[in-house]
Amino acid sequence: MPVELRSIVWEEDGTVRLLDQTCLPHREVWRTCRTAEEVAECIARLRVRGAPAIGIAAAYALALAARNAGSRDMQELLEHLERTAAMLLATRPTAVNLAWAVERMLNRARSLRALDPEAAAALLVREARAIAAEDEEANRRLARFGQALLPQQGSVLTHCNAGALATGGYGTALGVIRAAWEEGKTIHVYVDETRPVLQGARITAWELQRLGIPFTLITDNMAGHFMRLGRIDAVLVGADRIAANGDLANKIGTYSLAVLAFAHHIPFYSAAPTSTLDLSLPDGSQIPIEERDPEEVTYLAGRRIAPRGVQAANPAFDLTPHRYVTAIITERGIARPPYDESLRKLLEESS
Amino acid sequence: MPVELRSIVWEEDGTVRLLDQTCLPHREVWRTCRTAEEVAECIARLRVRGAPAIGIAAAYALALAARNAGSRDMQELLEHLERTAAMLLATRPTAVNLAWAVERMLNRARSLRALDPEAAAALLVREARAIAAEDEEANRRLARFGQALLPQQGSVLTHCNAGALATGGYGTALGVIRAAWEEGKTIHVYVDETRPVLQGARITAWELQRLGIPFTLITDNMAGHFMRLGRIDAVLVGADRIAANGDLANKIGTYSLAVLAFAHHIPFYSAAPTSTLDLSLPDGSQIPIEERDPEEVTYLAGRRIAPRGVQAANPAFDLTPHRYVTAIITERGIARPPYDESLRKLLEESS
Repeated sequence: MPVELRSIVWEEDGTVRLLDQTCLPHREVWRTCRTAEEVAECIARLRVRGAPAIGIAAAYALALAARNAGSRDMQELLEHLERTAAMLLATRPTAVNLAWAVERMLNRARSLRALDPEAAAALLVREARAIAAEDEEANRRLARFGQALLPQQGSVLTHCNAGALATGGYGTALGVIRAAWEEGKTIHVYVDETRPVLQGARITAWELQRLGIPFTLITDNMAGHFMRLGRIDAVLVGADRIAANGDLANKIGTYSLAVLAFAHHIPFYSAAPTSTLDLSLPDGSQIPIEERDPEEVTYLAGRRIAPRGVQAANPAFDLTPHRYVTAIITERGIARPPYDESLRKLLEESS
Repeated sequence: MPVELRSIVWEEDGTVRLLDQTCLPHREVWRTCRTAEEVAECIARLRVRGAPAIGIAAAYALALAARNAGSRDMQELLEHLERTAAMLLATRPTAVNLAWAVERMLNRARSLRALDPEAAAALLVREARAIAAEDEEANRRLARFGQALLPQQGSVLTHCNAGALATGGYGTALGVIRAAWEEGKTIHVYVDETRPVLQGARITAWELQRLGIPFTLITDNMAGHFMRLGRIDAVLVGADRIAANGDLANKIGTYSLAVLAFAHHIPFYSAAPTSTLDLSLPDGSQIPIEERDPEEVTYLAGRRIAPRGVQAANPAFDLTPHRYVTAIITERGIARPPYDESLRKLLEESS
């Protein structure tokens, strides 16, 4: 029986249920959000995280906002949604999927000017559900493309969590691994714990355990060691934003992995739905890198691990220049260098 | 007033006091060891750690063993010391300073065959104290050589703890930074937290705070990001064992840093006393890499951070091939490639 892992569910009573990923792996706590503000707070606090998942959560937040607005007319509703959108966009700057989903919801709302607010709200709920369903379908498609890149037998290193819980379902980087596994390939996963928030140790390990895929948990600084020993056949990560030239922002530590993979002649793949592409940016230099609270570094599970008063840096993402990226795996196919051409072509061919 | 930081003290009452480094930075707990077995347990549990410091602790352990032996003659004492030496050598395999100090103590004991056991024990205490004092003096010397390599103003990245507490006093890699700072150079230190045991976050941060040297704590996976941004001018680490060709074993994560530094054209220095050299090994391939309890990875400060039952790897060290090493800083001078020649020459010239 296939394992179903999901982190965001729209309930028929008009609420959004989120699996609180800050409580994993110890407890499976579901939070019920009744307002857009509650969803925004869950995004800011990483209760829901992962580029596609925060896009979906934001779409649902706008659906909640539309239902709760009590607007007398569409103009009032649109203004309310635009204010809500601005609040959502301020939560996390790096992943473009958030802006992408918000923009899609606002465009849909604008297309409904002829309706009354209540009917529009119902259609906006439907739009948000479509975003979620399309994301899961995109994952399954990109996973099928991507799994062909993995050997019949081998080890894949992944970083952070780009699994079912980071998306609408199934997963991007972990989806590729899952598809290879379902294809009967013998895959062993090396899981970077991914400091400071430990999405690898807490969430990827949790997902792989449920899927029954064998893995070894390592600290981030062991990756090079295992590459040198010839134990890693491919590196596979997600992405939070991909510029037109293939430069990509992803969880802090991704860049180090990409350089290490390059030095060891190991392929480095990023798997992401096309909602992660931001072709408005010619390269990655303009991608905003979120700086989070230094206490994520100096505290762990509520305990201080460094002396009081130390200064710590906490960039949540880093930028990997395209020259380190072997291929980008999307639901429309696999892009290879030069990405300026291949990414644009993928979008054009299928649209 | 100069700050004195020390982790191992021989007391006149014939005991060894060790600063329990597993309790840092929260509490300064000193443990009193009355037997060699107690010292060995402190080494195995990382209460005392750092290649030179465990050498010194082992020397003191043998001094304790000699005092406590109650041997009727020197033959009996030597046999007792050889059994104690084997027990000490079994605690941690990678750092050669442990074997070096044990061998020096045994050789000294063998040279004392003409004495009675009590007189020999007194001289073995003196020998152990000499090892400690010489190590501190070696640190101060290598620090003066090494500081000349640092810019008048710049940032240095260090990993793990190669400071006063890891040695007989003053420190190796941190000693170099300290000497540059005392020279009036404007140095900012980036401190890798150094998972899994967090020697950077817990111990290096604690030392730098006491020394008043400014630093930024980062997670290990941020190093590449800050190199790419041009924020790191040099990488400076210690070493646990250096082979004849310059290959070196050091704390896990060192190899990744060395490759990253190489890719960014940043000099990578290792600072270590010559007691860390193992010229009996032509290259690093024969250096044993200690594998520690996986719970150091899956638990942090007593709390589980990964799902129950996950498999984790925990190599405590990795190997950095000599081609990534810009220079090796010792108390006898600075060795540069080819290390086969330069390291041997350093030892020959000064001996």
